[in-house]
Amino acid sequence: MQADIGLIGLAVMGQNLVLNMNDHGYSVAVFNRTAARTEEFLEGPAKGRDAIIGTTTIEGFAVALKRPRRVMLMVKAGEVVDVFIEMVLPYLEAGDVIIDGGNSHFPDSVRRTRELQEKGILFIGTGVSGGEEGARFGPSIMPGGNVEAWPAVKEIFQAIAAKAPDGQPCCDWVGDDGAGHFVKMVHNGIEYGDMQLIAEAYHLMQSGLAMSAEEMHAVFAEWNQTELDSYLIEITRDILGFQDTDGTPMVEKILDAAGQKGTGKWTGINALELGVPVTLIVEAVFARALSARKAERVKAAELLSGPQRSFNADQAAFVESIRKALLASKIISYTQGFMQIAEAARAYDWKINMGDVANMWRGGCIIRSAFLGDIKRAFDRDAELDSLILDDFFRDLIDSCQESWRTVVAEAALLGIPVPAFSTALAFYDGYRTARLPANLIQAQRDYFGAHTYERVDRPRGEFHHTNWTGSGGNVAAGTYNV
Amino acid sequence: MQADIGLIGLAVMGQNLVLNMNDHGYSVAVFNRTAARTEEFLEGPAKGRDAIIGTTTIEGFAVALKRPRRVMLMVKAGEVVDVFIEMVLPYLEAGDVIIDGGNSHFPDSVRRTRELQEKGILFIGTGVSGGEEGARFGPSIMPGGNVEAWPAVKEIFQAIAAKAPDGQPCCDWVGDDGAGHFVKMVHNGIEYGDMQLIAEAYHLMQSGLAMSAEEMHAVFAEWNQTELDSYLIEITRDILGFQDTDGTPMVEKILDAAGQKGTGKWTGINALELGVPVTLIVEAVFARALSARKAERVKAAELLSGPQRSFNADQAAFVESIRKALLASKIISYTQGFMQIAEAARAYDWKINMGDVANMWRGGCIIRSAFLGDIKRAFDRDAELDSLILDDFFRDLIDSCQESWRTVVAEAALLGIPVPAFSTALAFYDGYRTARLPANLIQAQRDYFGAHTYERVDRPRGEFHHTNWTGSGGNVAAGTYNV
Repeated sequence: MQADIGLIGLAVMGQNLVLNMNDHGYSVAVFNRTAARTEEFLEGPAKGRDAIIGTTTIEGFAVALKRPRRVMLMVKAGEVVDVFIEMVLPYLEAGDVIIDGGNSHFPDSVRRTRELQEKGILFIGTGVSGGEEGARFGPSIMPGGNVEAWPAVKEIFQAIAAKAPDGQPCCDWVGDDGAGHFVKMVHNGIEYGDMQLIAEAYHLMQSGLAMSAEEMHAVFAEWNQTELDSYLIEITRDILGFQDTDGTPMVEKILDAAGQKGTGKWTGINALELGVPVTLIVEAVFARALSARKAERVKAAELLSGPQRSFNADQAAFVESIRKALLASKIISYTQGFMQIAEAARAYDWKINMGDVANMWRGGCIIRSAFLGDIKRAFDRDAELDSLILDDFFRDLIDSCQESWRTVVAEAALLGIPVPAFSTALAFYDGYRTARLPANLIQAQRDYFGAHTYERVDRPRGEFHHTNWTGSGGNVAAGTYNV
Repeated sequence: MQADIGLIGLAVMGQNLVLNMNDHGYSVAVFNRTAARTEEFLEGPAKGRDAIIGTTTIEGFAVALKRPRRVMLMVKAGEVVDVFIEMVLPYLEAGDVIIDGGNSHFPDSVRRTRELQEKGILFIGTGVSGGEEGARFGPSIMPGGNVEAWPAVKEIFQAIAAKAPDGQPCCDWVGDDGAGHFVKMVHNGIEYGDMQLIAEAYHLMQSGLAMSAEEMHAVFAEWNQTELDSYLIEITRDILGFQDTDGTPMVEKILDAAGQKGTGKWTGINALELGVPVTLIVEAVFARALSARKAERVKAAELLSGPQRSFNADQAAFVESIRKALLASKIISYTQGFMQIAEAARAYDWKINMGDVANMWRGGCIIRSAFLGDIKRAFDRDAELDSLILDDFFRDLIDSCQESWRTVVAEAALLGIPVPAFSTALAFYDGYRTARLPANLIQAQRDYFGAHTYERVDRPRGEFHHTNWTGSGGNVAAGTYNV
């Protein structure tokens, strides 16, 4: 018997994907660098599943596969992926498919698509999101790479993928070479943003309103019945309701130093490289970095004073304002994330269907939500939508939130509670809807000290002017000085 | 006659540096790729200066130099620098010095230091700031690279550099390989931040208080007599007072689409790579990016609504509050910038004297200010200062501003005027002085969906715990899923 697909790398994500594939009727050959783990898997979670075939050598693994061979790697992103590609290549032939399902950085997937294409091998770099549960029962799958490989895996991937509420699989072809991993990267960045927004709401309720974990548990349970209905709100509800063995809220025992593994940074770095103002994700990444400076903060807390003010308005009303601030900020975050994907598609020459991206994120992944259905519908209405907030639905929704949103940001500033993501989202909204920003002054400054020239409001775009502001600068154009 | 130093690249910065060197008694050989420009320079600005020696070939240029030869490149950053290094190398010998004075990216200077060291040539990568005026009459010079080269150029560089108010030259050795260009990069990032802060103050006065350019001209003139005393405030004053030929304020004719040449982005990207929360510079970079989307903003302005509120408190008092908000935000921006340098010194193994860095920025460069004297004194008091705001002087100064700062951020949110830099600075201050941030919830979420584990407040650091939140996740550690 030969297997429909092979999977290398039996950490939890790999194991669960194998079980998921097998549940859907596919036979799977598996290989792991340490054979003991393969053994444990076959004797444990995979016990009694005859269509899961253990192999102990790469050659044996390759021999166990139907043609075209489909080899899925679920190994640590980075050089390890290249090592396994090198290991498996001698046993593959033209038309076989290698799929990297790890969190690879998209430029690596661009490179691998090209390198393998030169050898006649078809490469797919795919985001797989949803953590352990997703992998086991239906992840969001975002494949990109060599489009010729898509027919060979489409059926399997769409079978094992999560399904959106309307039954659509949360998996479709994203685009050429690195497009799949790019979209997964932005997904992760948005996830950083969503988590930071929830953390700010929690902070405001806890520090500003002195609410208990139990009270907040109830609030998040309610919020999950609103437009905020989503996996992250749901698990926040559960976390706030979870007691430690001593009966006190577990969340309060956890150290406030957030870790990160890099994909949020990648999103921010790419946004800077592309020049897209993805401010909220970057603030979320930096908020984690600041949280990690725990000892320094504890010291600073003793030395630096805050405002004397305390909150004294209606608590229930303010909780509802926080909910609206979160919702409005979330709309901005997704607006920015989709702007980044659109800019990347232009810069890297990918054809990406934004509605499909929203659809892939509707189920299976960490940011899954009812909200993403609304985003899909917005792109269905207008596939060329410049910006989500220009869609009628989101424009009206954000408008219905804005008074509360402004109140929350203002109140947080006065109370001394940091809300970097709420604030930057509001600043973006106000900047975006401002026809005339103060950047004219910045252009004047740049021309003053560096003769960088400027355009004029009363002259055509593309015509550059210089003013001799001091009367002594002369007319030599700026050379090496760049700012 | 042989020249003390040679300079290649006669754009405005190069020309002005040559004249500056010659003013200080140094003879300078010059070369330019297009000989016509050399000719124009010798017949124009350099006319009558016998110690400026024009050359028409690289060989002739090298022959014209005293030993050890000092070859300063003032050419476009990037590959052009490598091209000129290759061109000049055949005419150099061990102990000669190549100085790159362009805005090179610091990793290139790391590489060039190493590559040239292997050939026995000493390399210096140096930031030179101050624009045309600075180059001509005293720039800030930030040299790093091969420290053995320092004695060969120290006298010339410190002679031509700007002098701080107390007479100290704004030039000292920064550190190994890329340290000079790194510090110049952060300088430019801070410059982006300072310019954005001024733009936000301008925006608040113009849109919030309906003040005229002339009124704001007067305000900036006053501000320049306070702690804000600086070159950028000074030129803002001048810009606001500058009339176009029709007698109306020139600044109002300038298009509000800010350009950028990349060093702000580099600073932000590096901050993300190092994991240092340099939020203000990144917001400033993104604010420029948003401003550049002019057509999109004009369209959005028609579709998106803002608040109905208008400002109705005391104008003069609010202007003073804006000044304090600017000052406090500026303190945060420099705090973040110096945090980034400190982190880079740890990461890249540089020994950098923070007080010297502040001193180099006191004069000559775009961010020169009285304020940098205060920063130098803070580092003189404590060279190991974790953070500028923990210094007594800055702590008290920011404390004296904070009520106004909070009012301005709150009022801007309510008025619908974007102040991303003021806001992010305040959020940083409040985050930094918060012993307990809501990152515990983020850690709980990461452990919930990805089994990423967390530390506990009641257990030692470095001990990692996992909770089986759902009762079904199992105990397999997270594998490929990283967030």
